[in-house]
Amino acid sequence: MISRLIHIDATSDDSLQSQIRHKLVEGILVGSFASGTKLPSSRKLATQLGVSRNTVVLVYQALIDEGYIESRERSGIYVSNNISQGKVELNEQQQPSYDASSTNNHHRFKGALATTNATSCPQNWHKFSFPFIDGKFDSSLYPVKEWREANNKANTTREIYQWSELQGAEDDPRLQDEIRTKILPRRGIQANRDEILITVGSQQALHLICQLFVDNSVTVSIEEPGYPEMRELLTKQGAKLHYQAIDDKGLVVNEQLDKCDIIYTTPSHQTPTSITMSMDRRDEVLQKAHEQDILIIEDDFEFESNFLGQPHPALRSLDNDNRVVYISCLSKVLASGVQIGFIVADAGVIAELKKLRKMVMRNPPLNNQRAVAYFLSLGFYDAFMMHLHKVFFERWLTLREALNTYLPNCIDTGPIQGGTAYWITGPEQLDGEYLREEAAKLGILIEPVKRYFASTEHPENCFRMGVTSIPNDKIREGVQRLAELIHKLTATYEEKLTNAKGKLLNNEALMQLLPNALLECQMVYGVPCLIELLSDGTMKGRTGGTGSEVDSGRWWIEKGMYYRQWKLWAYGEVKGFYVIMDGDEMKWFDQKYCFVRQLELKGYKGKI
Amino acid sequence: MISRLIHIDATSDDSLQSQIRHKLVEGILVGSFASGTKLPSSRKLATQLGVSRNTVVLVYQALIDEGYIESRERSGIYVSNNISQGKVELNEQQQPSYDASSTNNHHRFKGALATTNATSCPQNWHKFSFPFIDGKFDSSLYPVKEWREANNKANTTREIYQWSELQGAEDDPRLQDEIRTKILPRRGIQANRDEILITVGSQQALHLICQLFVDNSVTVSIEEPGYPEMRELLTKQGAKLHYQAIDDKGLVVNEQLDKCDIIYTTPSHQTPTSITMSMDRRDEVLQKAHEQDILIIEDDFEFESNFLGQPHPALRSLDNDNRVVYISCLSKVLASGVQIGFIVADAGVIAELKKLRKMVMRNPPLNNQRAVAYFLSLGFYDAFMMHLHKVFFERWLTLREALNTYLPNCIDTGPIQGGTAYWITGPEQLDGEYLREEAAKLGILIEPVKRYFASTEHPENCFRMGVTSIPNDKIREGVQRLAELIHKLTATYEEKLTNAKGKLLNNEALMQLLPNALLECQMVYGVPCLIELLSDGTMKGRTGGTGSEVDSGRWWIEKGMYYRQWKLWAYGEVKGFYVIMDGDEMKWFDQKYCFVRQLELKGYKGKI
Repeated sequence: MISRLIHIDATSDDSLQSQIRHKLVEGILVGSFASGTKLPSSRKLATQLGVSRNTVVLVYQALIDEGYIESRERSGIYVSNNISQGKVELNEQQQPSYDASSTNNHHRFKGALATTNATSCPQNWHKFSFPFIDGKFDSSLYPVKEWREANNKANTTREIYQWSELQGAEDDPRLQDEIRTKILPRRGIQANRDEILITVGSQQALHLICQLFVDNSVTVSIEEPGYPEMRELLTKQGAKLHYQAIDDKGLVVNEQLDKCDIIYTTPSHQTPTSITMSMDRRDEVLQKAHEQDILIIEDDFEFESNFLGQPHPALRSLDNDNRVVYISCLSKVLASGVQIGFIVADAGVIAELKKLRKMVMRNPPLNNQRAVAYFLSLGFYDAFMMHLHKVFFERWLTLREALNTYLPNCIDTGPIQGGTAYWITGPEQLDGEYLREEAAKLGILIEPVKRYFASTEHPENCFRMGVTSIPNDKIREGVQRLAELIHKLTATYEEKLTNAKGKLLNNEALMQLLPNALLECQMVYGVPCLIELLSDGTMKGRTGGTGSEVDSGRWWIEKGMYYRQWKLWAYGEVKGFYVIMDGDEMKWFDQKYCFVRQLELKGYKGKI
Repeated sequence: MISRLIHIDATSDDSLQSQIRHKLVEGILVGSFASGTKLPSSRKLATQLGVSRNTVVLVYQALIDEGYIESRERSGIYVSNNISQGKVELNEQQQPSYDASSTNNHHRFKGALATTNATSCPQNWHKFSFPFIDGKFDSSLYPVKEWREANNKANTTREIYQWSELQGAEDDPRLQDEIRTKILPRRGIQANRDEILITVGSQQALHLICQLFVDNSVTVSIEEPGYPEMRELLTKQGAKLHYQAIDDKGLVVNEQLDKCDIIYTTPSHQTPTSITMSMDRRDEVLQKAHEQDILIIEDDFEFESNFLGQPHPALRSLDNDNRVVYISCLSKVLASGVQIGFIVADAGVIAELKKLRKMVMRNPPLNNQRAVAYFLSLGFYDAFMMHLHKVFFERWLTLREALNTYLPNCIDTGPIQGGTAYWITGPEQLDGEYLREEAAKLGILIEPVKRYFASTEHPENCFRMGVTSIPNDKIREGVQRLAELIHKLTATYEEKLTNAKGKLLNNEALMQLLPNALLECQMVYGVPCLIELLSDGTMKGRTGGTGSEVDSGRWWIEKGMYYRQWKLWAYGEVKGFYVIMDGDEMKWFDQKYCFVRQLELKGYKGKI
């Protein structure tokens, strides 16, 4: 082994001794010869290298003197334990293989990525107490036992012979069949084997599709804000990009799309806002594509996590016109390690994509294709998805509840139905990037949104919070701390009891106004909430929208403040508020005189 | 499940009944509802779809009448077994998801591969009796037991938590360490972790490198003949290509390289000729790169299979100038399923390649990275490589011996030292492509060479024979049959005893000439062989070149023919030849008067 590493150059100006010494030291420092490795005897090494034994003896002796290697009695020569232990840090820094004058290759980079690969979170995200990061996963979610079983099944002798013979460019037909019978029907999609291509995750699917359909003659519509990695891929292909707005029904469909050759969209849960495209909008997009002869790339990266209401059928399943190229992947929890994604399109497109895939990579690892086929066929995937759905739904509700409790009338998440992240619009004056930095110092990770915008113009007061990486029991505390920070950062802009417009109500005015009052306020997630204060001191609440909730509680007046306690909402805690009336708007302030929320007093006609 | 697949469009002109029917039939034909699947009761499906029960009853009844589904007493409605069994063939052909008028997307292909992805062999190669195909592997070679053990170790609960947390763009540091301490030192290369990037096979390594270094301003030298997939990648990047010749020392180094920015080369065993680049040539290439500021891409795809002599150090290990980007992969036997390759380059290049890799795919599957790390750390890889080396060496020698026995003075393999394929030059008049077609009819697969040439001008009489896919005990018979075919195809051009130039020797002349004669001929693999015919009827033979062989045997003269029998050579068989002298050249013809081989009679001064 070691002799192979030492190449003697007879024509070198360097002496034999020096050449051998140099290679040995380099090997020890770089770690190619680990501490404690036994070196060949001087006699043996000399024979192997074809040099005199004395040459090797002299080299060894010098290295022993210097502490690189050590001679152990009756045993032989070993790489010293001390030298490499003490020097690892240093050696990681240096580049011992090259001269100081070695060439720098940067000037040769033709396809270097100028724009960064900015990531959404630090590498060590799991060391933060409150990681509200979407798309990272706490490892408790990994279906360890089930993966092991599927993986074992895929690696019996018989199975190995089967999948190792698929070598070439073909996919495992078993996985194709599992996808087309178990995954695609959930999305309303039917497909033959030759309409499916397996990829190394959905990122590769996007890459291949860009390679096939996009060059500098093509105009592509991409959502703004949208998925930055796709923007990067398209830019690298030289595409002309059109940035299309989204609204609360998903991608806006208007005449601006007419000039586009391709529409890239994320209808299930728009990246990054999590908005689900409405059925009407789906029809409009397909209609537009039909009229203008546009190809649609449907990125269904998160199809399983619609918490409120039924999932909508994929665009691909509604398309009678063969214009939709559909991309999806296994749940990201599984996919992040095993990396299986897929494309569904007509057989002609799949055949061409397969050729491209062969050119850039041959095929996705076949052992994993087979293991995932078993994971599906054994029913593990269904069970796993149900489990994930439950866990994420719970976290998603917990986060919504906490945001609603600690940041009412302060933030807005939009009326989303699912997904694993909230797109949060904070107070106008909030600097989202500064908030992120300050929050990180408190152990709270939130995601900045700048990277989702192509335009340099983007809302400064937005950020994202996800639920895939944070355990349920951490969410409330994290939001509470974040809320305190936001209030601190926006304190100078917020209305205070001391400077609020309107009239502060005293005990008597409260007694006159509140019994039988009907109050309407807005949840942070965009639905109204009606609160009825009954004259017997009880109260009822009901939220609007999909997944409407009800609760009851009690209320009273004490020392010029309105107190209330819900059974479930707001964690069942007693809270007291100062109340100011400003027209028919009621404003609540807490004991520290800070603004809490604004409500409309229904049927109020200026009684106070 | 099934109700999700059926999307009712209230605005459609199609009746509800027709819509439900259409989706059910489609699902059955495509196989989304497999034979024997139980369908929901009409009551349940009606509720799920929000239609009247009668609607569903009518649809079901019609489908029962038509045989698509069947009602089983006291059990329910099932997808019929007959219908899908009988129709699989047909259904695979049709595209039921789309209208006949559906859009064809071919006009949208921007990055389609014009040149095809031609492959070197048919998909069903393992059904041929004599598959002399390089790069395909009979599954007996797969290290099943060892792979299972490594894979098991990588999938314990603790390990899964570890690798699943590496999600993002990072490689498994354990695999990096195994590569840098166990694989790279064999090639004389030392590298830090940040100088290594893991890829999905070596094809992805090439793709990433092309993406980084190549655009239409770059001139790349590529070997002619050379690796066609690399030519395709470069062409797709818009590179200007320069085709550089090779000789028996590898890539020719001359002033034609001066205009190139990049040299792509396969020094270990040149693709496709298997020629190993000499040490001198390696120095020349590096020197040229230094003088002309050229980057070298060293594709060391097959570094382990040098059968004769020591392997040469990689260019990367000889490079003091940081100009070599090194690519390799695990043995292809393992890699073909698991797909692990790697790049070694300076840290700046690796960092940029990692960004590109993230954009096109995130990272290579981490479960496989960890499993391969164990495969290496447990020592399985070393043992496996030794085994493979032994097996391939044995086959390689068997093939050489067979070629030499059955096709002497007819073909030429060049003086190669290793690799797993022979590049064979046949008789001038041979049409290699026609030979391939005719051989395939006899169950013999040989590889055509056209795809290795960029130029339309290529030798018509060449083909390749590999040893990775054919068991040792099949080789001799395959070559024997191939030799018969070649002689048949070139019969009209070959010299015959009946029309040969020179003088046919009779018994007496043979008796006069042969005792104590020294004959020299050429092996098909380019080394001389000296045969000494002693006067006592024994003979000795010795081949030249690396790996020189000796044998002895007996010879005699009988009925105007020279007979001989080696102990080992030519399978120890007795063979008789007619002998013609033409100048100092001796020519042998077999009993069918066909030409066998030509020899030089040393020291012959026209005695006959």
